[in-house]
Amino acid sequence: MRILIKNGTVINANGRQQADVLIDGDKIVALVARPGDDAGVSDKAGAALLALGADEVIDATGKWVIPGGIDEHTHMELPFGGTFAKDTFETGSRAAAFGGTTTIIDFAVQSKGKSLQEGLDTWMAKAEGHAVIDYAFHMIMSDVTDETLPEMDRIVDQGVSSFKLFTAYPGVFLSDDAAIFRAMQRSEKNGGLILMHAENGIAIDVVVAQNFAAGNTDPYYHGVSRYPVFEGEATNRVIRLAEAAGAPVFFVHMSAKDAVDVLMAARDRGTKAFAETCPQYLFLDLADLGNGFEGSKFVCSPPLRPASGGHQQALWTALIKGDLYGIGTDHCPFDFEGQKELGRGDFRKIPNGLPGVEERVDLMHDGGVVAGRITPARWVELISANPARMFGLYPRKGVVAAGADADVVVYDPNRKHVLSAKTHHMDVDYSCYEGREVQGGSDVVISRGRIIVKDGEFFGKAGDGEFLKRETAHWVRKN
Amino acid sequence: MRILIKNGTVINANGRQQADVLIDGDKIVALVARPGDDAGVSDKAGAALLALGADEVIDATGKWVIPGGIDEHTHMELPFGGTFAKDTFETGSRAAAFGGTTTIIDFAVQSKGKSLQEGLDTWMAKAEGHAVIDYAFHMIMSDVTDETLPEMDRIVDQGVSSFKLFTAYPGVFLSDDAAIFRAMQRSEKNGGLILMHAENGIAIDVVVAQNFAAGNTDPYYHGVSRYPVFEGEATNRVIRLAEAAGAPVFFVHMSAKDAVDVLMAARDRGTKAFAETCPQYLFLDLADLGNGFEGSKFVCSPPLRPASGGHQQALWTALIKGDLYGIGTDHCPFDFEGQKELGRGDFRKIPNGLPGVEERVDLMHDGGVVAGRITPARWVELISANPARMFGLYPRKGVVAAGADADVVVYDPNRKHVLSAKTHHMDVDYSCYEGREVQGGSDVVISRGRIIVKDGEFFGKAGDGEFLKRETAHWVRKN
Amino acid sequence: MRILIKNGTVINANGRQQADVLIDGDKIVALVARPGDDAGVSDKAGAALLALGADEVIDATGKWVIPGGIDEHTHMELPFGGTFAKDTFETGSRAAAFGGTTTIIDFAVQSKGKSLQEGLDTWMAKAEGHAVIDYAFHMIMSDVTDETLPEMDRIVDQGVSSFKLFTAYPGVFLSDDAAIFRAMQRSEKNGGLILMHAENGIAIDVVVAQNFAAGNTDPYYHGVSRYPVFEGEATNRVIRLAEAAGAPVFFVHMSAKDAVDVLMAARDRGTKAFAETCPQYLFLDLADLGNGFEGSKFVCSPPLRPASGGHQQALWTALIKGDLYGIGTDHCPFDFEGQKELGRGDFRKIPNGLPGVEERVDLMHDGGVVAGRITPARWVELISANPARMFGLYPRKGVVAAGADADVVVYDPNRKHVLSAKTHHMDVDYSCYEGREVQGGSDVVISRGRIIVKDGEFFGKAGDGEFLKRETAHWVRKN
Amino acid sequence: MRILIKNGTVINANGRQQADVLIDGDKIVALVARPGDDAGVSDKAGAALLALGADEVIDATGKWVIPGGIDEHTHMELPFGGTFAKDTFETGSRAAAFGGTTTIIDFAVQSKGKSLQEGLDTWMAKAEGHAVIDYAFHMIMSDVTDETLPEMDRIVDQGVSSFKLFTAYPGVFLSDDAAIFRAMQRSEKNGGLILMHAENGIAIDVVVAQNFAAGNTDPYYHGVSRYPVFEGEATNRVIRLAEAAGAPVFFVHMSAKDAVDVLMAARDRGTKAFAETCPQYLFLDLADLGNGFEGSKFVCSPPLRPASGGHQQALWTALIKGDLYGIGTDHCPFDFEGQKELGRGDFRKIPNGLPGVEERVDLMHDGGVVAGRITPARWVELISANPARMFGLYPRKGVVAAGADADVVVYDPNRKHVLSAKTHHMDVDYSCYEGREVQGGSDVVISRGRIIVKDGEFFGKAGDGEFLKRETAHWVRKN
Repeated sequence: MRILIKNGTVINANGRQQADVLIDGDKIVALVARPGDDAGVSDKAGAALLALGADEVIDATGKWVIPGGIDEHTHMELPFGGTFAKDTFETGSRAAAFGGTTTIIDFAVQSKGKSLQEGLDTWMAKAEGHAVIDYAFHMIMSDVTDETLPEMDRIVDQGVSSFKLFTAYPGVFLSDDAAIFRAMQRSEKNGGLILMHAENGIAIDVVVAQNFAAGNTDPYYHGVSRYPVFEGEATNRVIRLAEAAGAPVFFVHMSAKDAVDVLMAARDRGTKAFAETCPQYLFLDLADLGNGFEGSKFVCSPPLRPASGGHQQALWTALIKGDLYGIGTDHCPFDFEGQKELGRGDFRKIPNGLPGVEERVDLMHDGGVVAGRITPARWVELISANPARMFGLYPRKGVVAAGADADVVVYDPNRKHVLSAKTHHMDVDYSCYEGREVQGGSDVVISRGRIIVKDGEFFGKAGDGEFLKRETAHWVRKN
Repeated sequence: MRILIKNGTVINANGRQQADVLIDGDKIVALVARPGDDAGVSDKAGAALLALGADEVIDATGKWVIPGGIDEHTHMELPFGGTFAKDTFETGSRAAAFGGTTTIIDFAVQSKGKSLQEGLDTWMAKAEGHAVIDYAFHMIMSDVTDETLPEMDRIVDQGVSSFKLFTAYPGVFLSDDAAIFRAMQRSEKNGGLILMHAENGIAIDVVVAQNFAAGNTDPYYHGVSRYPVFEGEATNRVIRLAEAAGAPVFFVHMSAKDAVDVLMAARDRGTKAFAETCPQYLFLDLADLGNGFEGSKFVCSPPLRPASGGHQQALWTALIKGDLYGIGTDHCPFDFEGQKELGRGDFRKIPNGLPGVEERVDLMHDGGVVAGRITPARWVELISANPARMFGLYPRKGVVAAGADADVVVYDPNRKHVLSAKTHHMDVDYSCYEGREVQGGSDVVISRGRIIVKDGEFFGKAGDGEFLKRETAHWVRKN
Repeated sequence: MRILIKNGTVINANGRQQADVLIDGDKIVALVARPGDDAGVSDKAGAALLALGADEVIDATGKWVIPGGIDEHTHMELPFGGTFAKDTFETGSRAAAFGGTTTIIDFAVQSKGKSLQEGLDTWMAKAEGHAVIDYAFHMIMSDVTDETLPEMDRIVDQGVSSFKLFTAYPGVFLSDDAAIFRAMQRSEKNGGLILMHAENGIAIDVVVAQNFAAGNTDPYYHGVSRYPVFEGEATNRVIRLAEAAGAPVFFVHMSAKDAVDVLMAARDRGTKAFAETCPQYLFLDLADLGNGFEGSKFVCSPPLRPASGGHQQALWTALIKGDLYGIGTDHCPFDFEGQKELGRGDFRKIPNGLPGVEERVDLMHDGGVVAGRITPARWVELISANPARMFGLYPRKGVVAAGADADVVVYDPNRKHVLSAKTHHMDVDYSCYEGREVQGGSDVVISRGRIIVKDGEFFGKAGDGEFLKRETAHWVRKN
Repeated sequence: MRILIKNGTVINANGRQQADVLIDGDKIVALVARPGDDAGVSDKAGAALLALGADEVIDATGKWVIPGGIDEHTHMELPFGGTFAKDTFETGSRAAAFGGTTTIIDFAVQSKGKSLQEGLDTWMAKAEGHAVIDYAFHMIMSDVTDETLPEMDRIVDQGVSSFKLFTAYPGVFLSDDAAIFRAMQRSEKNGGLILMHAENGIAIDVVVAQNFAAGNTDPYYHGVSRYPVFEGEATNRVIRLAEAAGAPVFFVHMSAKDAVDVLMAARDRGTKAFAETCPQYLFLDLADLGNGFEGSKFVCSPPLRPASGGHQQALWTALIKGDLYGIGTDHCPFDFEGQKELGRGDFRKIPNGLPGVEERVDLMHDGGVVAGRITPARWVELISANPARMFGLYPRKGVVAAGADADVVVYDPNRKHVLSAKTHHMDVDYSCYEGREVQGGSDVVISRGRIIVKDGEFFGKAGDGEFLKRETAHWVRKN
């Protein structure tokens, strides 16, 4: 199968170029300059390539040709609080594809007392044969022990080169400082990057209990109880442990100005600390958690932050100047009916998580590029190139270049559409952005040379997505 | 003329790819994946392109194919202290080419009381017909007045979209804070970026006079008198003026930790402050200014900093994490004999400036990439892509991509050679790095499709270099 | 004349004590514990002292006995913009006394081109024979030259051990960085502390001119034009010069958060930087400058700051923790009628300055102690002890202790009264706090053993105030 | 008993005065100015007082009269690692007296699972009838539970208004973040200040185990294993918890620059965070832990810090500018023979603690005042006034003032003597400062009106020291 994308503007993380893109099989095989005001010379080259014949020619006039999005943070089918995140690898990856995302990195979970391998095997089984786009895994470690520490090396060898630990969720996922520190020491040797959910869960639980005891049972108190300062504290703690261990560290879903300040200070002194944020922290706020139990739709951790605290501004500043590295979604959808409702009258029982894998690329385009905050190139870097670089997929993924996987999106930067549960493809009964109009949309989505979405129609197939063995994060150690 | 560069590793600012590069005329027209372990598919595309025939096929096996270097800061033929920087646009640009640099951005100087246009015309005349590689200009403003402020707009229109001001050199180039502030306000409107030499020259002159009066006349006292804190102070002052004016600002030749700290703090709060440093501040230090009058070879401003002050470490940290944006040389060579000697017995009379245009690319490769501090991609970003982006030349320059100018270097990352005045091509009688062995060298240098250096031989021609009209720094305002 | 103050609570900077205070002549000669729950032993001591007989016994039951206030910053009869600050040393010092202040430190002004001595002599003549309380002088230097630098030493010898320089008022008082730096170097040797008015006057004048040209002529634009960042910038610049000179520095009338942040950072790294603020920056804001030309009543420099910028909070934090050292008033009153009115239609012509010498002690009590921000001891430190310590008057002034000058105030911490031009004693036709009720007032004011105010009646005499020769600021160098 | 101290210079935290001090019973009853150059007027007052007759007249000509030292941090008879700190309340308080200290605040320890009251009762019994000077207690909480939280209020009511918690010593004293946070919330209400030993003991134990496993068993590895960054981290964590709880916090024995930086930043933003340091961190360093097992003499926690890390400079800067509040000793002596030796071959078993209660006042005079770092007044503030203010003993203690307890030291600022185990009065077989000559010594020590040390002879009596009920730290909340 040979595809030629003509007349588009190719946008990579390092800028734009006017070039046609030739795909052959699952790879991009050539980028060719078009005849133009200043480059009549390329005529022959283009002609030669065209002469090869293409099975499909896509006219991208007025469109952008970008690398497929990479969502570095999803939780398909995650068990949480007695239920499961609603999207399966099939439904979730299909929704991702509609949204211009061609790779997800999900989280395999080690169950307490079990081996890492068992956790990985379980998640491999969930995804294999179901995902419609390529996928990879991070590994959530529930125990850091003399058994699991050496096992980390073997997990890295299997292409799962990052491990997530938590300072939150005492009794469930929380690792104490010794566990974090030891895992960091090990990761420095095996190249497995440590990812952190940084909130002081122990202190949070005190406030949660106090609020609940005081009769404050609405979803809003989920947000109120998890102070921004608790994220800032845990972020600093983890950074200091990383400095002591001489290891890099990556923070997932950074949400609070308190944490951004700490991150910036660490980076200024040369610490290899990195972070992502998620669209919900850029576009939603604590007020969304109000409105009675409706707010449960917006319950996630860390919580949406108060509009008045300067949190969103801090996140944008960090995104623009480079201290925030990428955009994941923490996609973890629960239906309002039947799932979120488990926490009626007790915000502690609301499953934590929001849907978002489908909306990430467009939200960042609309709120970032259209709003004038970032350039198109920086947008591509945040949604695709940097996730690939940070997590050992680059330059196979994350770039439109000769030799890269043919994960390519023809993106219309002008098309407007409305986000809604009525039209989205995620398997969840509400949208966090219901009714919001965004500018920008993925017209054609190509996954390893196969057109899987075109003009709103799905042509992909469950099981076509492959597991990606990721390299270790060596560049993180060098840069 | 059609050139095919085969079997090399293309390295751009955003990473590496295995691809062949086809040049036709003065443009890169295609990048084509090679058949390989994972991409047999590209066979036909490559074959088709090859079938076009190439006038010259360069085998880059084991080599890197990088965009030609861009030295954003040179001073060819600059008048200073009664003499002139020794390199002409011809000798200097040829030396640049030997060092893998295919574009220089020099500084046209407004004479006090004259129009900007006269200054620009003078420098245009110096370069035209002489440069062997492409060149552009920044504009040094000696007066900021009701006449020159509106004239800035017209200079921008001519493709000179940056203006350099000084807080140093009282009575010569120094602009007071009103001048700087007004120029910033104007630049915010016309898109002309303000470049700053930030040292508190007024305070420095007090110390200079005191040292001279105390009989401290050696070159070493040039370095001693210009306190690092005076650079830090001026940097902060200029940043605050930029914040007040709502304009971005770019610092040339940042050298002191004091300034880096200020820059980082500004960027953390979202200020659009940018900076370059130069190889001499990364690889040389105050001790080089000792050794009697020999030290005059190392007299430049800002001066080389004490080894003990953490200055180099601060610069590297900033380079690695992104707070320093690019590498220029401030190339401004004076012969030791006859020129530097003007300051025997009076360090105040030593012409300020060092040679360096030829050594920049290799020094940064050796001290950056080989030393394990930065990746090859970051190296390319610092020496080529970022100078192009910051100064309105991107993506015409600074990237190996279809459609870009065919300014391409085939770089050998393993070849070792020794820097020396005996072998360098700059027209100056000493080298700041005499005897230093560096790893990495430019084997083939192509300027707009013409091979001008190959295996140490020069094939270029004076006058082949063209003046580049630069775009305004719009992205700086957005990012 | 012997006075016994009985039954009061003595409050010094280091805390409170229950003791009677015996004054003999112009000195405090003893503090004696009273018989009480825990100290029957003191009965005899008290009895013995009482047996000496007192010409006047003041019952301070329920009152505080504090050292007389020291206003370290006043401008009596200052020439400014073609007129003079309205209060003479007589009227101004009398108003000060009513407000519980028994010492002022005013500013003698060197006229450009004249000697420091001439300036000092002029101001000595203005005060001598007229002041009703003790007074001292700082010296404003309009020129820093080879003549005035050595003259500084002789001024210090005369008990004028501090010199004020300006980065504001170009063409009038502004010193350039060389002047400031040289004066600091000299002061480090002669013990004369450098005081700074830190605003970037050169940049301010650009904005002033632009606002005026745009037709913004109201007093409000005085405030708008003098950006807080310009105070922050100048403060940092001066601190860096002080660090380079190895000299301490004291900032007068600090008003902007931008400056406070810079001050705190400097102090954190061990720089001997100190500052005062004034009541107007704690209790008034930019909005007071609105309301048409009424705002002229509030025109001073630095200007009142926007309520929204966090300026007052920053000042209070610094006051509470110790980074702001004392409270002066910058008392410099101009009548609204006839004086402020000089600037109708042109805010640039409004004389700069506010009345305040009378209200300082009470405002700081009301807004500081009563509001729960500071302890009574800290209040005394700010209004009396610290000004005395910083400016070489301690322990002669600034403390209620045996051996100190008998400058004592019996203060009623509960008495409420209303500030108003109708009732104040300053010679100016308006009050900045018109109608504001404050809690706390000076019932009895004693100046060197003479009761000069009692229950609202004045018993002092012009000329009873003496010139105070101040010691050099040696402790500032040690602490 | 009436004592008159004549001709001395009284030094309090707020400065010096020339005054005679009259003591009657256990109180200071009067300070009286002496006739002199400027105060002949006091003749009669002095004469009247003298006429009362004094049982003892002490001539303090050339000496300083200061408030008795207050050591806010001692551990007499502390059980640790299977042994007990060697000094009893009798021997330890006698040694304190010889060193010019007239009050100690020791730590009562709650045993895990027992009530706070039992712990307090135990320590009350240890001290009562044995101490030769006055004493008070902090309370160490080993459990923070629903039982002990309300019990805190009752402990405060008994005059024990501070509670110490640890982030160090996992399994022994360590409190988790929930415990610390809840105790802070309670303390905010009952006025009991939380004291913290802030080191991340959980991370430290990982490094300790790794070092021990690697065969690094010498005392030196005690110091090496407890990274400075672990103190910095814990300090930040605790401060953030305090901010979340809205409570003040006090750090004991701050030792690392990392912690000082965090403290300064917190104070700059207005947080009520306070700290002490100890002489050992100012005058000793990690190298003292070397020299084989001899280093065990210097084993304490936090450990002595590396000389090269800027730690001592940071502590001095903070002491000078006010961010460190007082000086305690953490006096906790163990004999080298028989006690420190428990850890031969295993540094983990060396009892933690150093002797120091006797040397504090002189070391701070010698290294602070004589060395020119601080003024005599600041010295008195650090060793006496501030401990009294912070811990609810002021103005009964900590000041030479009419009405205060007659805890007075006649101090010779010129006398030199040599610190040595041969001559000291602490019951421990070595000195950390063996052979160090210091300038300054306590000639006469008066405890509540009784002369207990005079010219090196002891006149005190076990049991004369009284338990001091301390007030709550209300001022800490206000300042």
